[in-house]
Amino acid sequence: MPDKLFRLRRSEAPEQGRRPVMVAICGDSATGKTTLTRGIADILGADRATAICVDDYHKYDRAERRDVPFTVLNPDCNYIDIMEQHLQLLAMGRPILKPVYDHSTGTLARPVRIEPREFVIVEGLLPLHSKLSRACFDIAVYLDPPEEIRRQWKLRRDCADRGYTPEQVLAELERREPDSAAYIRPQRQWADLAIRFAPVAGHEDRKDTPLSAEILLRPTIMHPDLSHVLTDDDRRTLHLKLIRDSDGRPVDALHVHGYAPREDSRIAEKAIWEQLSIDTGAALPERLGEYAPGKRSEALAIAQLLLLWHLLEARA
Amino acid sequence: MPDKLFRLRRSEAPEQGRRPVMVAICGDSATGKTTLTRGIADILGADRATAICVDDYHKYDRAERRDVPFTVLNPDCNYIDIMEQHLQLLAMGRPILKPVYDHSTGTLARPVRIEPREFVIVEGLLPLHSKLSRACFDIAVYLDPPEEIRRQWKLRRDCADRGYTPEQVLAELERREPDSAAYIRPQRQWADLAIRFAPVAGHEDRKDTPLSAEILLRPTIMHPDLSHVLTDDDRRTLHLKLIRDSDGRPVDALHVHGYAPREDSRIAEKAIWEQLSIDTGAALPERLGEYAPGKRSEALAIAQLLLLWHLLEARA
Repeated sequence: MPDKLFRLRRSEAPEQGRRPVMVAICGDSATGKTTLTRGIADILGADRATAICVDDYHKYDRAERRDVPFTVLNPDCNYIDIMEQHLQLLAMGRPILKPVYDHSTGTLARPVRIEPREFVIVEGLLPLHSKLSRACFDIAVYLDPPEEIRRQWKLRRDCADRGYTPEQVLAELERREPDSAAYIRPQRQWADLAIRFAPVAGHEDRKDTPLSAEILLRPTIMHPDLSHVLTDDDRRTLHLKLIRDSDGRPVDALHVHGYAPREDSRIAEKAIWEQLSIDTGAALPERLGEYAPGKRSEALAIAQLLLLWHLLEARA
Repeated sequence: MPDKLFRLRRSEAPEQGRRPVMVAICGDSATGKTTLTRGIADILGADRATAICVDDYHKYDRAERRDVPFTVLNPDCNYIDIMEQHLQLLAMGRPILKPVYDHSTGTLARPVRIEPREFVIVEGLLPLHSKLSRACFDIAVYLDPPEEIRRQWKLRRDCADRGYTPEQVLAELERREPDSAAYIRPQRQWADLAIRFAPVAGHEDRKDTPLSAEILLRPTIMHPDLSHVLTDDDRRTLHLKLIRDSDGRPVDALHVHGYAPREDSRIAEKAIWEQLSIDTGAALPERLGEYAPGKRSEALAIAQLLLLWHLLEARA
């Protein structure tokens, strides 16, 4: 049980008044935010992690949005000032009464009381939109798979889970593009970790090869020392490269190869896990890297481990 | 237009960052809270007054309440900590996303964004329950008509507007009595103004005589100087008496006689109005004292005027 494990790091006495660690998982729709969030929340356990989605701060329900000139990606379509206020309250360890947007019906439902636990994971379209909201986070993550992959993911999810037709989803993607460019993608600049799940360019993956990932470890926060993980043996799975970010600033790019053999990936995961956990010899969480029942991604597993490292480090 | 009038008192420039005046209108159900609140909010105008009801902080909807061992009067049936938080935010001039309880259906609906104006009027069952909530108010009012009158009012309203049968209302009153005694009535001690609409004891009112009122002006805040209003001519309408409060503390009791001729009452109202407003000669608001379309109560009018005086005084 990783949950019990992590506890060993901390005093046995409950820490009253201690502020939670806040992490933002930001990105456009269908970029894997919920998968990453659930994975982390699951590993930490419900008694230690609170996960919320700030897309619940929509001002309008689906029917009303037909009459407004912007999409849900637009800050004007959301109660941004209330989102900021609620993030501030959570960051101070105080409860909120959070609005609820029901994706299945497209309606605004009764709000729920949310109590911040040790870790608050905030996913959504616009958590990094404003300076006030960004100031609430200890760690900010941005997910940006290539547009073609995001399109596939959105088609699959919105048709299967939200009752849309493929034509509706494609039309919606097109309608959202200007707001996506204006409000969602600019948030990438504020991320400490920018994660791109994608096939490796130039590598001929066989069909069904799990996705690889490029994880930018920006020097805005301290990252784990991966030098002993990145031994020659592990190069097939992971390698770290000093590059320039899209804006020219220096950044570490961690490449996780989806085509690497599972055994190799596990070695790398264990090495990070040992650095992260205290009680060496503890087992890796079973569900690490799981993105659907029975389906795993080593790239996701590495991303989750890095994020766990950051959460526990911020808490330490 | 009283609205324009009041403005003369203040600078023409908008006062950014100025905190609103907060008033609580507290009392058991069907004590006239909404009538008093609406009257005041109406006279001040929607651009100057924000009126909210803190009964919207119910935790459970009507169906769920069948399975809980307490009534809506019980703090455990309400998100008191969220109510406190929202009152604090409003008192600081910040917006809130307020939950909404729909009395007609008994369900919790989508929340609404509330922006505090210059005056925030907060009515409800428990606004004075906790020390933190009380600390948010500049003026606190408690309404306590005699139980028999409240019963009549509740029967009339709940049967006409909320779809209950008289038997249901009477059973509910009985069921609520322990929580009413334990949580609602104790709040009377925290009021600056305790208002009791009732026939005058010992006075044989004819049928349809409007109710009189006893208004306790507690020395917890400064009250208007009524000495020039209470001339001999006005004694039929109003008189002020130094008495002991139910806990023994000294208090001024203002008696407003519902049986006084309308002309006399108007003289007293005008005298208070002139003290309250600045630009003498302004007309009394038309709807002062109106509690139903075409129905007026001089006692209500005096109570409203006193409260207006307090609101404007706190703002000055």
